[in-house]
Amino acid sequence: MSLKADFTQGFVRNQWYAAGWSAEIGARPLARRILDLPVVLFRMPDGTAGALEDQCPHRLAPLSLGECADGGLRCGYHGMVFDHSGACISIPGQDVIPPTARARAYPTIERYGLVWVWTGEGAADEGLMPSVPSYGEAGWEILENGYQHHGANYRIEIENLMDPAHTTFLHKETIGNPAAKNIPVEVSRTEHGLKAFRWIENIPPTPLDRESRDFGDGRVDRQIAFHFQLPATSFVDIAVIPAGAERSDQTMNAGVRTYSYKFLTPETQSTTHFFWLHIRNFRVGDDAFNTKLRGSLEKTFDEDNVMASAIQREQERTGLRQKTALAIDRAPMMALRMIDRMVEEDQAKAA
Amino acid sequence: MSLKADFTQGFVRNQWYAAGWSAEIGARPLARRILDLPVVLFRMPDGTAGALEDQCPHRLAPLSLGECADGGLRCGYHGMVFDHSGACISIPGQDVIPPTARARAYPTIERYGLVWVWTGEGAADEGLMPSVPSYGEAGWEILENGYQHHGANYRIEIENLMDPAHTTFLHKETIGNPAAKNIPVEVSRTEHGLKAFRWIENIPPTPLDRESRDFGDGRVDRQIAFHFQLPATSFVDIAVIPAGAERSDQTMNAGVRTYSYKFLTPETQSTTHFFWLHIRNFRVGDDAFNTKLRGSLEKTFDEDNVMASAIQREQERTGLRQKTALAIDRAPMMALRMIDRMVEEDQAKAA
Amino acid sequence: MSLKADFTQGFVRNQWYAAGWSAEIGARPLARRILDLPVVLFRMPDGTAGALEDQCPHRLAPLSLGECADGGLRCGYHGMVFDHSGACISIPGQDVIPPTARARAYPTIERYGLVWVWTGEGAADEGLMPSVPSYGEAGWEILENGYQHHGANYRIEIENLMDPAHTTFLHKETIGNPAAKNIPVEVSRTEHGLKAFRWIENIPPTPLDRESRDFGDGRVDRQIAFHFQLPATSFVDIAVIPAGAERSDQTMNAGVRTYSYKFLTPETQSTTHFFWLHIRNFRVGDDAFNTKLRGSLEKTFDEDNVMASAIQREQERTGLRQKTALAIDRAPMMALRMIDRMVEEDQAKAA
Repeated sequence: MSLKADFTQGFVRNQWYAAGWSAEIGARPLARRILDLPVVLFRMPDGTAGALEDQCPHRLAPLSLGECADGGLRCGYHGMVFDHSGACISIPGQDVIPPTARARAYPTIERYGLVWVWTGEGAADEGLMPSVPSYGEAGWEILENGYQHHGANYRIEIENLMDPAHTTFLHKETIGNPAAKNIPVEVSRTEHGLKAFRWIENIPPTPLDRESRDFGDGRVDRQIAFHFQLPATSFVDIAVIPAGAERSDQTMNAGVRTYSYKFLTPETQSTTHFFWLHIRNFRVGDDAFNTKLRGSLEKTFDEDNVMASAIQREQERTGLRQKTALAIDRAPMMALRMIDRMVEEDQAKAA
Repeated sequence: MSLKADFTQGFVRNQWYAAGWSAEIGARPLARRILDLPVVLFRMPDGTAGALEDQCPHRLAPLSLGECADGGLRCGYHGMVFDHSGACISIPGQDVIPPTARARAYPTIERYGLVWVWTGEGAADEGLMPSVPSYGEAGWEILENGYQHHGANYRIEIENLMDPAHTTFLHKETIGNPAAKNIPVEVSRTEHGLKAFRWIENIPPTPLDRESRDFGDGRVDRQIAFHFQLPATSFVDIAVIPAGAERSDQTMNAGVRTYSYKFLTPETQSTTHFFWLHIRNFRVGDDAFNTKLRGSLEKTFDEDNVMASAIQREQERTGLRQKTALAIDRAPMMALRMIDRMVEEDQAKAA
Repeated sequence: MSLKADFTQGFVRNQWYAAGWSAEIGARPLARRILDLPVVLFRMPDGTAGALEDQCPHRLAPLSLGECADGGLRCGYHGMVFDHSGACISIPGQDVIPPTARARAYPTIERYGLVWVWTGEGAADEGLMPSVPSYGEAGWEILENGYQHHGANYRIEIENLMDPAHTTFLHKETIGNPAAKNIPVEVSRTEHGLKAFRWIENIPPTPLDRESRDFGDGRVDRQIAFHFQLPATSFVDIAVIPAGAERSDQTMNAGVRTYSYKFLTPETQSTTHFFWLHIRNFRVGDDAFNTKLRGSLEKTFDEDNVMASAIQREQERTGLRQKTALAIDRAPMMALRMIDRMVEEDQAKAA
């Protein structure tokens, strides 16, 4: 693992990335830079989400300055209309549509309240879509539409998200927990990534745990698992079960459980779209709790952004990643190495 | 015509450019970058407008930080005074004026309410000044002092100004007219440029036309002509005459006529000073109408600026101008080609 | 003396530079860029001022985002703690401290209300600290904590501060004095620099002089001396003594005397930290006078900053320093030459 910061490394292009929340894409087109490409998101008259290069092939006007009209996305300069396949379907004052009148289109999938785009040149593979277990099931509450703009390369974000050790210091006012720091973190491979986790065993349930499930007079085991899924998804899986109970999805779903998802979409080499989604199986329908939780999550992610952005600037200034390595770097370094390999494979595929 | 965007192309230097409105140049010197050179505009004690490189030859202080004093433009740092020829006429505390104590001077002409500067190294040729017919004649109302700062190379601005087709879409809330779009535009050469025009024939006069001239119960012909004059002047000539009448300056001046001038002065390769001047032969002296018209024009030019600036950024990002060509590109492309040729001639002259 | 502007010239590194006012460095660490290096200033538990490279050796987080805690400066990301020698004294969750876990430390001295840092690689030489005569003595009033951020290379600032001629024009509303301009300025070498001075002889004392000292019905001699001390200290020494009296420190201290110090610390090649300190031997303890004086000094230094920043931009645009030389350039040019030589010596020492 090089300790140099390498900003020439490419992105993993043949993948799905969260491009926008469904609720963001309505009557007006939305411009969003993704993997350093300008993309415009819009809806066809039937509601299908489209994603095109945000550039009219005529004079390069951003299509996002246009509007949803005349059966597609109409350029705001001369009125050319494009559908979600990128085909030009009309040119005002001209009957013949030249073959060069075409915009690059990105395949889309709308799922989990998000519009996802496939940024690769290869065929879109729906099997590569991230999956969110229990999403939409009865008894699960969803916090959605979470978005922050972060000032760091997505690798710095992934390091942060696979690193339980920083919460004690960076998040000391929100989720930091000094007591947990002496319980070792285990790291293991998963199907598409990695998890770094610890079980805190045989502790009394918190008041919130107790109020959410009946643990009797008993004690509980609490899992905190930081997951990374290639290329750029992170989630934290927190589960509270009766102490000593079997550790299965079934018992954890019967206990108190939370998934805190972050879908990272590289905007540029130095900035990241940070989409977050939170689901849980307790306090369902409790709007006051939702409001408080949303505020706390936003504050935590703001703290991460301040730190990640400062590190990004320092990496740019020095060309370095780090000067010393600590024991806590194991999971972040494994994640970075997995990204490196996937970028290489992706670029080999493209070549 | 290359479809590449070429930002290394020079400017036409041996020409006059609008540098500032006369009303802007008063007691205090005015800094303005012109063709990528810093210029300071000021007045000599007798009122003559001067234009110097905005740089004191001593320590390079911008002369625009000084003041009009001691018989010329006095540097704000050590008090050296320069006249409009660029000669240093006094140095505080020193009797001898070294020959290197001299600022580059640009020849000026004050006309049409504007101070014009000659930016070339060659002799200033007054015959190359733009002319504005009917300016200052009785029966013509003048809207002057129009200025906007636009975020695009002047070529993108010229494309826009020679392109009647975009008004339907970009200016749909002001001057856009969906009905006109099917009447073909003719393009012809003029003495120093090009015009793209159409006559809309045998239509009823608008209420404004009728109120301005007595067209009886008759119908009218309406001309809209987009003119380009090398290197960077545009004007739209709108005339309304009785249907079928002879199409001469005489009949058009007897009808309802408007000239909408734009004098474009490149500031840098990516920005343009947009001076606008509007004259008309109706509603003379009507201040309420003037106010409304000024607001409408400013809004229209703002819309052009938003689009042109976005295209500038996209040209810079991609190094391209366009990816497909349409029928409506004819006049803009002819204008760009004329500019290209003039730049080549200008550079050959300089070499 | 080249008339070119050379921004590749290094700084004099083996020297002390003012880094911050003591009052600025309290409970929270302070980030400040010095000689183009990021520095964090903080206090150890015993109050000692520390100065480290503002970068954690682990993931390059700016240490200034951390806090003074756990016996040193604690990184805000993972809690590593550093003392003022740069040694890491603890790593949460890890007993062994790797030898690479170390931050670059800069030697500090706290004097004259300022924390000074030694920026060189060589051994810190306390003998090179600037000295401020009469500082802290009874009968002298101190105005401290003066700070401005200036937008110019420190050489442009030094030129300005060794140049009495500009005050007539640039500071015409504050300290400018048209009458003084015809009295010649003498220039002489001092131990570590240069002074440019003039005595205005046999003039009536000002009302302020008369109120501060009893000059009887007599007239006075007034010295204005602009001092430069390598590498980047300037002070103006103003003294009023009875006309014809001996010109010694003793007589001047018995008269009305002022030292106006500026400690310039290069931030980058194009910006400078401008620390100012003013001491005087009259109107001691007069807070109303202090307030008025502080305002007047700030205004004067603002004027210098506007001019110096504009010259910086013009030097960057053109690559030049000046195009003509005047008689008044003698002292500034001598100062620049002394800086040039010292940079060369400093770089030879480093090599």
